[in-house]
Amino acid sequence: MSREVVYGRNPVRELIAAGRRRVHEVWALPELRDAPWLAPARPRPASRAELGRACGTSDHQGVVAFCDPYPYVEARDALAEGGVLVALDGAQDPRNLGAVARVCDAGGARGMVMTRRGSPGVTPAVCKTSAGAVEHILVSRVENLASFLHDAKGPARWVVGADSADGRDYREIPWSSDTIIVLGAEGAGLRPRVRSACDELVRIPMRGRVDSLNLSVAAGILVYEALRGI
Amino acid sequence: MSREVVYGRNPVRELIAAGRRRVHEVWALPELRDAPWLAPARPRPASRAELGRACGTSDHQGVVAFCDPYPYVEARDALAEGGVLVALDGAQDPRNLGAVARVCDAGGARGMVMTRRGSPGVTPAVCKTSAGAVEHILVSRVENLASFLHDAKGPARWVVGADSADGRDYREIPWSSDTIIVLGAEGAGLRPRVRSACDELVRIPMRGRVDSLNLSVAAGILVYEALRGI
Repeated sequence: MSREVVYGRNPVRELIAAGRRRVHEVWALPELRDAPWLAPARPRPASRAELGRACGTSDHQGVVAFCDPYPYVEARDALAEGGVLVALDGAQDPRNLGAVARVCDAGGARGMVMTRRGSPGVTPAVCKTSAGAVEHILVSRVENLASFLHDAKGPARWVVGADSADGRDYREIPWSSDTIIVLGAEGAGLRPRVRSACDELVRIPMRGRVDSLNLSVAAGILVYEALRGI
Repeated sequence: MSREVVYGRNPVRELIAAGRRRVHEVWALPELRDAPWLAPARPRPASRAELGRACGTSDHQGVVAFCDPYPYVEARDALAEGGVLVALDGAQDPRNLGAVARVCDAGGARGMVMTRRGSPGVTPAVCKTSAGAVEHILVSRVENLASFLHDAKGPARWVVGADSADGRDYREIPWSSDTIIVLGAEGAGLRPRVRSACDELVRIPMRGRVDSLNLSVAAGILVYEALRGI
């Protein structure tokens, strides 16, 4: 089985805490060896240069783990227990993906759905920017987002797309705790087929001059609104 | 007078559109010269290499403007007309500052207050990550944030600090449209003197395993909540 790297203190801590993927080996700077969260993983001492080579960036904060690949779930499993999901129609920036993962974890959404093509997936950089949140939420990759949404919706599950031009004000719709929130790429918005798969379009009012909120900010406002009643 | 650079398409477009600072000169790739938003500035043709040298990054998207320094406002002017302000207690990452500026613009907050020391101010990188939002909102730098808050608060103006441990749920307090929202650095939270200058502490519920939201996401949720009624 191929192995992946996870780097950075929060990501490695959450990788270990979540226990969802097997950790083969951990390398760390000698001074981190006895940190309570890391000691049980018995890290192998490594230099900054070795750590940098292992993960391809200097952003490792002294620790790199080698582990099983990210455990994506099947779409049906992401849907199985209900709850809020965030579906991303074409988000490519690892910082955005990581920040949306943090929103899901903090806000109580079950996870994220993204397309297999056009999205990088849960790369080591996404793990890092998510502060390890990806280890706790569900992430599913689908071939075709519009088809996924068509299959997923039903009497008890609502599909709500964010559309800055045409949507109803997000404060005015009846939110359900069993909702898929669909967000497009910044600037581009939702593709037509994805848009037409939505039961409802909502917009967050833009009161200024610059047109769009950062993707993770929009995700935060909508996830907290969907779960406002809990 | 010293001059600053602003780079990137949105930042330069908003710099020109806002008209708050004098633009000395604009350099652009030849193919951008006739773009409707740029043509009136009569850009001087420049190569990618020249643009990169002028702004110190390859992230210029083909356009760099030389202009007056960023027009910070005095604290009293930021307060003069009421409204919502976001005060940052120690935010250093330019991406966070830029994203909070976008939140202010989009959400209808008047602007941001930051400390002179410990914060980079509105650098070219902040202009870029704000997509030009900094040209439209007010930004004030103060020597001492706790003193500023003490001076600012009054019967009509409320100072609300975000505190993930002790605050009241943000959905439960009576928000006023004349509020200063105070956010600490990620992880560190508010410093004690800043914290004690707040009339009220609020928290955004964290329902997952990873402890804090990205700064701009927290700002987005609270700014939209403060102005929910408008």
